[in-house]
Amino acid sequence: MKDKKIYLDYAATTPVDPVVLEEMKPYFSEKFGNASSLHSFGIEARDSLERARRSFAKFLNCKATEIFFTSGGTESNNLAIKGVAFSNKDKGNHIITCKIEHDAVLNPCKWLEKQGFKVTYLNVDKQGFVNLKDLEKAITKETILVSIIFVNNEVGTIQNIKEIGKICKKKKIFFHTDAVQAFGKININVKKLNIDLLSASSHKLYGPKGVGLLYVNKDVKIEPLQHGGGHECGLRSGTENVVGVIGFAKAMELADKDMEKERKRQEKMRDKIIDNLLKIEGVVLNGPKENRIQNNVNVSIKGIEGESLLIRLNEKGIAVSTGSACSSKSLEPSHVLTALGISSELAHGSLRITLGKYTKEEEIDYLLESLQSIIKSLKKISPF
Amino acid sequence: MKDKKIYLDYAATTPVDPVVLEEMKPYFSEKFGNASSLHSFGIEARDSLERARRSFAKFLNCKATEIFFTSGGTESNNLAIKGVAFSNKDKGNHIITCKIEHDAVLNPCKWLEKQGFKVTYLNVDKQGFVNLKDLEKAITKETILVSIIFVNNEVGTIQNIKEIGKICKKKKIFFHTDAVQAFGKININVKKLNIDLLSASSHKLYGPKGVGLLYVNKDVKIEPLQHGGGHECGLRSGTENVVGVIGFAKAMELADKDMEKERKRQEKMRDKIIDNLLKIEGVVLNGPKENRIQNNVNVSIKGIEGESLLIRLNEKGIAVSTGSACSSKSLEPSHVLTALGISSELAHGSLRITLGKYTKEEEIDYLLESLQSIIKSLKKISPF
Repeated sequence: MKDKKIYLDYAATTPVDPVVLEEMKPYFSEKFGNASSLHSFGIEARDSLERARRSFAKFLNCKATEIFFTSGGTESNNLAIKGVAFSNKDKGNHIITCKIEHDAVLNPCKWLEKQGFKVTYLNVDKQGFVNLKDLEKAITKETILVSIIFVNNEVGTIQNIKEIGKICKKKKIFFHTDAVQAFGKININVKKLNIDLLSASSHKLYGPKGVGLLYVNKDVKIEPLQHGGGHECGLRSGTENVVGVIGFAKAMELADKDMEKERKRQEKMRDKIIDNLLKIEGVVLNGPKENRIQNNVNVSIKGIEGESLLIRLNEKGIAVSTGSACSSKSLEPSHVLTALGISSELAHGSLRITLGKYTKEEEIDYLLESLQSIIKSLKKISPF
Repeated sequence: MKDKKIYLDYAATTPVDPVVLEEMKPYFSEKFGNASSLHSFGIEARDSLERARRSFAKFLNCKATEIFFTSGGTESNNLAIKGVAFSNKDKGNHIITCKIEHDAVLNPCKWLEKQGFKVTYLNVDKQGFVNLKDLEKAITKETILVSIIFVNNEVGTIQNIKEIGKICKKKKIFFHTDAVQAFGKININVKKLNIDLLSASSHKLYGPKGVGLLYVNKDVKIEPLQHGGGHECGLRSGTENVVGVIGFAKAMELADKDMEKERKRQEKMRDKIIDNLLKIEGVVLNGPKENRIQNNVNVSIKGIEGESLLIRLNEKGIAVSTGSACSSKSLEPSHVLTALGISSELAHGSLRITLGKYTKEEEIDYLLESLQSIIKSLKKISPF
């Protein structure tokens, strides 16, 4: 087992699918033109970029002119939240989000508070769901934007996006969703779900890192954050990362094709892990059983530090995480688990296992075996 | 000649060097970890990222902790200018730049003016050089930042960065330079040149698109623009584009190795083009003869539209531009040529030819032949 390498941290990032890389290859050194150039190299790049844009639009059921490419999920979230806030100051200065957002939503909101905006951070229930009545109550005449994460990155809660969208539509408030963990796993029709802005990132669905998108409904007033040559219709300046977009589009196409099959396959493995782990004394599930994304398992183990587990599993060649990769170096308990009402002790004992399309049944068996023996040995030396 | 493809627009973008792509390959699907993850996949990615950071630091003669990776030149410029402006408001609200900056500097400055900052846009002389006395005179007690482009992207003027840096150092004002067109072509020692902040972009030197860097001297106070998981020491949140950085670093290494040889080779070709074009009646050189970047030719031709030339050359398989790719769709004459005092008529007749490491002598001969015959035929039908 020494050279075993089992990757079970697909929520942090994914390997690029070889088919995606194959699609990208000609765009590195042959079709490499600047999409803003007027000669044939430029036109070729522009055509490819716009073809990709149209395929995203079809996937999300929006117009191609409503898709804007960015450098990733964090930029998309920043652009959506700050861009709408700055552009709609005349209408109001209130934003609503929730306590289990990714830092790429929470921190732009906190920054906006320093600029004079007011932000309501909605509580969630023990499974991580936003209460729709709480949302309705939080809306004031000053509310200009609601931003709720589609699928939580730590505990996998799938929000009732359709109902949230309905409420926002009724109240004529723009609705943004950070769909980084949902995009490519859940069928998203922005019109049916009443979504006005949506962030997605390529590297979460077997596409390359460094590229993402923001869908912006044509009726949304939004200001650019990055100023320059006026690319992406002036909303996002900077030479277009054509090869990145090509890879992202191929990744989306592949995800779309196998979505239903993969969902079922991963759901089965996820439930096998959960069922088996819950048999171990002291193990509790974080997040919901229903409406949980198919690839997410998050458990806490009484008396055991998540980090110790992670290190022991890593020694056995298994890569998992204790929470979000982005805050992996923080000693604070996860803000998501805290918002779910989980005690600090249990939150420190959390372990996130996230599956992907390359996950095999036998990897799950090896994980379960390994975890059972590690937990047993750690319990022996636990000070608790 | 029908299938000829001669690329002479290297200032717009460059093909990825196959050696660079080879270096990148393992990072797509094998060494694909999230650099913030704590398991072996993450550690491997982090190690590679930090190794790349150290090699950039060595190249620029700074500390690794002073290098911050971004999505490209535009983001780097935005971060430098707005980041320093916001962070040093207590010291003053005045910024100095010049009239021939790239839009990725000019537009952040214009945006800052709307936020209450004052910006001086220095005039340049007929060759595009900033007058050092003008700079000194423009400095007030309120000045917090000077931003001057290292090499102009349209006419190739290499500024006297060392002297500008000296003035800024003496006056204790932070000095930023947009080095997108200089990086990899000119030896840059940030300490010797007294540069406090420097922007560079990978795709201008045979690296991949979608990645760049900002050097920030450790003594500079700077605020992040993109908030999230706190990557890049909190200055630039967003999952690190490890594969992009790896490619960028390899591209820099290759550029460094051949810099002197390539400079001389391109200089010779550049001068051959200039000398031959100036023999044609009505052709004038835009930009300087001395202190001009080795790969840039920019001429105007009386009575001929640059765009017509571009189209005719494109039909012959030659890719050139009329100016910056970023503003290629604008009908306005170039702000750079206008600032050089070139008449609107001549500015509309401008043609930019930029060479690269793949440019061959015979391509130059074919370009000259083609241009001579195209100019002759266009002059016949010119309304002027």
